[in-house]
Amino acid sequence: MLQHKKDADFGEWYLEVVQSSELMDYGPVQGCMILRARSYAVWEKITSFLDARFKADGVQNYYFPLLIPESFLKKESAHFEGFVPEVAWVTQGGNETLGERLALRPTSETIINDSFSRWISSHRDLPLKTNQWCNVIRWDTKTLKPFLRTREFLWQEGHTAHATREEAVAQVGRALGWYKECCEQLLAIPVLAGVKSDSEKFPGAEYTTTIEMLMPDGKALQGGTSHLLGQNFAKIFGIKYKTQDEREEFVWTTSWGVTTRLIGAMVAIHGDDKGLVLPPRVAPVQCVVVPIFYSDEERKMALFNIQNFKAELEARGISVLVDERSDKTPGWKFNDWELKGVPVRIEIGVRDMAQEGVTIVRRDSGVKEFVPNSKIADFVAHLLDDIQIGLFKRAKERLEAGVSEARDTDDLKNLLDERKGFVRAAWCGDARCEEAIKEESGATIRLVPFGDAPKGDCVLCGKPSKATAYFARGY
Amino acid sequence: MLQHKKDADFGEWYLEVVQSSELMDYGPVQGCMILRARSYAVWEKITSFLDARFKADGVQNYYFPLLIPESFLKKESAHFEGFVPEVAWVTQGGNETLGERLALRPTSETIINDSFSRWISSHRDLPLKTNQWCNVIRWDTKTLKPFLRTREFLWQEGHTAHATREEAVAQVGRALGWYKECCEQLLAIPVLAGVKSDSEKFPGAEYTTTIEMLMPDGKALQGGTSHLLGQNFAKIFGIKYKTQDEREEFVWTTSWGVTTRLIGAMVAIHGDDKGLVLPPRVAPVQCVVVPIFYSDEERKMALFNIQNFKAELEARGISVLVDERSDKTPGWKFNDWELKGVPVRIEIGVRDMAQEGVTIVRRDSGVKEFVPNSKIADFVAHLLDDIQIGLFKRAKERLEAGVSEARDTDDLKNLLDERKGFVRAAWCGDARCEEAIKEESGATIRLVPFGDAPKGDCVLCGKPSKATAYFARGY
Repeated sequence: MLQHKKDADFGEWYLEVVQSSELMDYGPVQGCMILRARSYAVWEKITSFLDARFKADGVQNYYFPLLIPESFLKKESAHFEGFVPEVAWVTQGGNETLGERLALRPTSETIINDSFSRWISSHRDLPLKTNQWCNVIRWDTKTLKPFLRTREFLWQEGHTAHATREEAVAQVGRALGWYKECCEQLLAIPVLAGVKSDSEKFPGAEYTTTIEMLMPDGKALQGGTSHLLGQNFAKIFGIKYKTQDEREEFVWTTSWGVTTRLIGAMVAIHGDDKGLVLPPRVAPVQCVVVPIFYSDEERKMALFNIQNFKAELEARGISVLVDERSDKTPGWKFNDWELKGVPVRIEIGVRDMAQEGVTIVRRDSGVKEFVPNSKIADFVAHLLDDIQIGLFKRAKERLEAGVSEARDTDDLKNLLDERKGFVRAAWCGDARCEEAIKEESGATIRLVPFGDAPKGDCVLCGKPSKATAYFARGY
Repeated sequence: MLQHKKDADFGEWYLEVVQSSELMDYGPVQGCMILRARSYAVWEKITSFLDARFKADGVQNYYFPLLIPESFLKKESAHFEGFVPEVAWVTQGGNETLGERLALRPTSETIINDSFSRWISSHRDLPLKTNQWCNVIRWDTKTLKPFLRTREFLWQEGHTAHATREEAVAQVGRALGWYKECCEQLLAIPVLAGVKSDSEKFPGAEYTTTIEMLMPDGKALQGGTSHLLGQNFAKIFGIKYKTQDEREEFVWTTSWGVTTRLIGAMVAIHGDDKGLVLPPRVAPVQCVVVPIFYSDEERKMALFNIQNFKAELEARGISVLVDERSDKTPGWKFNDWELKGVPVRIEIGVRDMAQEGVTIVRRDSGVKEFVPNSKIADFVAHLLDDIQIGLFKRAKERLEAGVSEARDTDDLKNLLDERKGFVRAAWCGDARCEEAIKEESGATIRLVPFGDAPKGDCVLCGKPSKATAYFARGY
């Protein structure tokens, strides 16, 4: 049983649940955590889901070097200034001191766009769509939290080059769409999607699109971003192509990424006071079976019965684990698998067997039901779908309830302080208004929704608004 | 067409072929190469092949931090001394100078065995089998070569802990078996398998097993290693477990890895003067189709015909690419796909169509054959198998021809100088004899074969031999 309650002390609850459920452990270097098998398996589900979509779109996987020379990183000045406070530097190789210090990649725009300049010369080389699955390092000085803010994390970074701005814009949109699908369909996390304000965009981008999530403490979490880099990097790295009529043009590039942070969001959004609640589609074990017996004969009978329905469940692609441990009580096992978030538990004891059935318990609601042997497979398959859909539905209700609307500045401040979550408000588009509220409340503009039709006057300065902005305090 | 010939100048040929076939490109930091889509796709085939075997054996994937504190690395002294000349160090994070320098992992025994000490307490926690797919950095000062010797490379490292020495020994053997299978079945590379001499074993291991390959220039290449670490790391990191009868014991650990070097070996062993020759089982494109036409009508007819057999090939799981480029001649395309190593080429021109068939060319031998439309799918499926088997068979003949036997010291030296390859010779087991021949010829003992029954006297000192050693110069 967890010591902390989610509602009473979300921060401590989160730290307790990620470690005690064996998702992660701390390593010797601050901010550099260990992903244990239980979380890495979730990451594998995320990578498969996204990788299939990337490949269907013609994106190919590459691997670019971890180490980037300082001079390279400096070529794009906004980019360099944005990242340099967070760069870890290699200064020694073996026994020699290096002539130039080397950055551990915080992101790979510079090295990848440099490569593009060698690989692209004709319109026939376009579009060029690359991705890499790798580790990145950002020497963050904000409060570190497993999965949510770490100095090393795993991610994918897609980088593409296109002949026209339109194609690049479409690619930016497709990538954000994949992230939204991944969150909604796989992780059962609802998101808000839109565009970042200029002050919050990726250093070096023309614009940044984002998906934002609502965390249980009322703060916003950025779940993934997709950037139009425009011709900015193309001009700096000289990425030109010959058009069909032999003119020389700069390409248009994009970049987009999601990280292992998604695992932390999933834990925070679905977990409860008993521990993790894993959405069935990412749960490495979807169904755990706990036999209950008081004699060796009963044990044998239970295991015999289990073999029958286990094969049926597996034939449907459901992953099943039978907990045969002899040194633990059934009650201990129930708690353990609840802590670890397994979506469905099947209990089978003498009474169940006498009635030719089992007791099935769902992790999300704790509801128990007796199910006859002949219906187990159907029942579990349906239950897994139902849990997946239910988790998403409840999270979506919380997200919708977490968005309020401000009519004026006081309203905005009060709502941010008292209701928390996202506060929607008319905004003139001026960075000074954004800065003013940030200084007062710590909240920033998380996004301007796609297809926004502004109405009313800016809640901060009273000038006519250009957009509806979503304000929130963030991770 | 390549400028260098494989037989005349293997070193230059290799450098030319890996770059011009678009397997790799050089990055801005020496020794840190870019894996382009064509080689990363081969790596994905290798990872799938091995990952399935790991998982079937109960090995689970984890991710451990890249950065390892110097004090950690120092805990095992042989290990530290073995790796410290090759370690790249992070000394700055953001704007602060770090209190202790951090190693970029050259390998992860220290950080993983330290974690084991927290995760293992009972015999019920054993065996614990972990693996990670990641990048590693070794600041090598020997001659760098793409894939074969780079400062950053991708690999997997398996780390396991067991209750008994026997179980650990068996795990070491299983891992080496997977590597051998991967080389032979997937990459069509024959290997020699055996044990390293003490002076060549992994720093900190009780013993190291290895698979060794023969490169076209007569040098040996280490293809993968699997180590019994014994209780060495367990004692240093305090990894103890309670036995069933409540005694405290140290665990037995193993580690094992293969790297992207395998891609370089595949290029070197199978390639020819026209470029790459990819074994069908790892070729991202197994069959390329080149339509030959002189009018738009012919073009349409060819593409119409192609649609029919393309679907048939794909239904059998064969990956097909139709080269419809309009700015290249058929001859240019033939050369291009030969350079890139696609196993099978289908040419379809007016004459072929008149006879209701296609011309099929195999990459390995260049042999052409006319095949009627009704038989294309069968023919190509069979051809891919035949090429896969043929590549392995020919490489195995070369490996066998590359092993000679020395009766005395002069013989050993002469064979190493003139015949090159592996020279088998009786060895007393003394490191001084090994050192003596290394100084004179540059050759080391690459392995002692499994199940070796020594016979005769040491070719170096004349004392009774303890083993048959395979000597060779290495990469």
